[in-house]
Amino acid sequence: MLDLERNQKVRNLLQQQGIEQMLVSDPLAVFYLTGKWIFPGERFMGLILKEEGTPTLIVNALSRFPEEIGVKKVYYNDGDDINVLLKNEINEKKVLGVDKNLPARFLLPMGDAHVAEGYRNGSFAIDDARAIKDEAERQKMRVASLVNDKAMAEFKKLIKAGVTEEEVAAQCLGIYKSLGASGYSFHPIVAFGRNAADPHHGPDSTVLKEGDTVLFDVGCKVDDYCSDMTRVFYYKREPDALTRKIYDLVRRANEEAEAMLKPGIPIASIDKKARDIITEGGYGKDFTHRLGHFIGIETHDFGDVSQANPNFTKPGNTFSIEPGIYNVESGIGVRIEDLVLITEDGAEVLNHYTHDWEVID
Amino acid sequence: MLDLERNQKVRNLLQQQGIEQMLVSDPLAVFYLTGKWIFPGERFMGLILKEEGTPTLIVNALSRFPEEIGVKKVYYNDGDDINVLLKNEINEKKVLGVDKNLPARFLLPMGDAHVAEGYRNGSFAIDDARAIKDEAERQKMRVASLVNDKAMAEFKKLIKAGVTEEEVAAQCLGIYKSLGASGYSFHPIVAFGRNAADPHHGPDSTVLKEGDTVLFDVGCKVDDYCSDMTRVFYYKREPDALTRKIYDLVRRANEEAEAMLKPGIPIASIDKKARDIITEGGYGKDFTHRLGHFIGIETHDFGDVSQANPNFTKPGNTFSIEPGIYNVESGIGVRIEDLVLITEDGAEVLNHYTHDWEVID
Repeated sequence: MLDLERNQKVRNLLQQQGIEQMLVSDPLAVFYLTGKWIFPGERFMGLILKEEGTPTLIVNALSRFPEEIGVKKVYYNDGDDINVLLKNEINEKKVLGVDKNLPARFLLPMGDAHVAEGYRNGSFAIDDARAIKDEAERQKMRVASLVNDKAMAEFKKLIKAGVTEEEVAAQCLGIYKSLGASGYSFHPIVAFGRNAADPHHGPDSTVLKEGDTVLFDVGCKVDDYCSDMTRVFYYKREPDALTRKIYDLVRRANEEAEAMLKPGIPIASIDKKARDIITEGGYGKDFTHRLGHFIGIETHDFGDVSQANPNFTKPGNTFSIEPGIYNVESGIGVRIEDLVLITEDGAEVLNHYTHDWEVID
Repeated sequence: MLDLERNQKVRNLLQQQGIEQMLVSDPLAVFYLTGKWIFPGERFMGLILKEEGTPTLIVNALSRFPEEIGVKKVYYNDGDDINVLLKNEINEKKVLGVDKNLPARFLLPMGDAHVAEGYRNGSFAIDDARAIKDEAERQKMRVASLVNDKAMAEFKKLIKAGVTEEEVAAQCLGIYKSLGASGYSFHPIVAFGRNAADPHHGPDSTVLKEGDTVLFDVGCKVDDYCSDMTRVFYYKREPDALTRKIYDLVRRANEEAEAMLKPGIPIASIDKKARDIITEGGYGKDFTHRLGHFIGIETHDFGDVSQANPNFTKPGNTFSIEPGIYNVESGIGVRIEDLVLITEDGAEVLNHYTHDWEVID
């Protein structure tokens, strides 16, 4: 059902930039605004936020659905002229916001047909609105991360003599589903030994060996919202002194960054805090990525937690804190990742799985 | 390396529509023209076919590559103004063809910066060029289908008491790779029993039963080109009279459609031939999809084999012939699919796996 608050939030953000109407075509954005998933494939779909009144959804008759979702529904058939339908809904004397990914095959004919006075990228308004989770979204983010915490405890049990990364990864979906998730938020990263020192490693046929690092970077979707967490274990043997030093540095970077969180601080300062700790520890060159990313309906919502982000934290922001050290020389890799939620007066860490290193026997 | 013939073919098609320059951004189209795969992700990439001379490739420095591919390379960094670079390469007094999927976030700023006199969807030229396979492509299509023929013989051996569709599907990739394929052209469809009567069925936990239909709709990529074939087997028991009748009807539709193939015939007439046979046999309502689709670098290249296609066959066309009957009342489903190549004086069927029904014991 059309969410009036989200709709108003998007309209306000658009109006601040002088845009009074918008054509929303991204299925994720349509879901965000209406609660309805529609996947039109190659075909046109548009939710038109008008200057006033009820939005109109233009969608192919093949995607017809019976329920009312608080919008005016207009169905078309293959071969119909979309622009005729658009002109009924859009004020041709005003600029139209469009989705950042609206393809040229739709945008160019709209221009030829003079559907609007001009076209502007309006996606910033939806991205900015989605970055501020409302109460219902915050609760879904909490639940998704609780399921992820429970799943991590189960994933640990998959680590046994002779298993490969692929074999372990193949069992994660079943565990997530048994815990109430609808699926992955992204395909799990399982990395043994030196593979943990490659932040982009995909599970392969590497066989587990005694003394190996075991890294899990995993996430699921619950009720359409994503979780994302990384933990590192050690198989059969306690980590050696250098590994512990690196682990403790990453853990401190994670925990000090999380401890500073509250509304109104520069997002860049969070990355700086974690990066300074790792740099002072001598491993700055091995922390090769941003500290984190925003997350919500997508694992990577719009927004980096990096020193290039000029914005300040706001209540309702949810993002990852995931410092890592990937030391190619020694083959040691560690990343510790939690999701966090900025609240009105502070912050919540949404993952509760321990930061202590654990030995799996 | 830039393929001069393909490049010229695309330019000629563009010029017939009054377009003298084009910005190609689809990675598949860039591969088709240059032989180089580049995946820029969210970042801008453009191969500019200019009025004359060497094309220019504008790509992020993160995608830098050392080899010469016959184009002028221009690298940019995050934060650089793409439109300044585009203006160096594009005649701003003339119309620019753009890719059908060029996103609004690139196209709108190009318009604001007056990169060209106007913008037109130029993808038809690349789609039309890709529909006519040259000698090198024809050979790759033949080899990919030969590998698919061999794979089908192996897939049949996976059918054993107690297996599920998912378990069988999970073993297909290994078999393809052992036969020299680089991967799937699409995820395999394995359907047991009544599931074969659903043309969109995905492999699930259905367990094989005696007397089941076993349908494989499978394809692999070899040397970047796709194969795609469907065959139906019967487990432990010969098909009953009704199943045989339906099987024979589908087989006849497939074989009579293939027998009529040559250059210069209406594509619509091929669909009509197969559909008339099935309709006269009494199952027209159960043949619920087009007869086939074009295929090449993508499993679904641009172009349908349906009665909505107004074009005529041309030497170098490669497409599927895949009549099917999905009879919900009886739960019987049969589809028989081959790839075909239109040649200068006739046609080749690229699949050689038998059309006879087989019982698996």
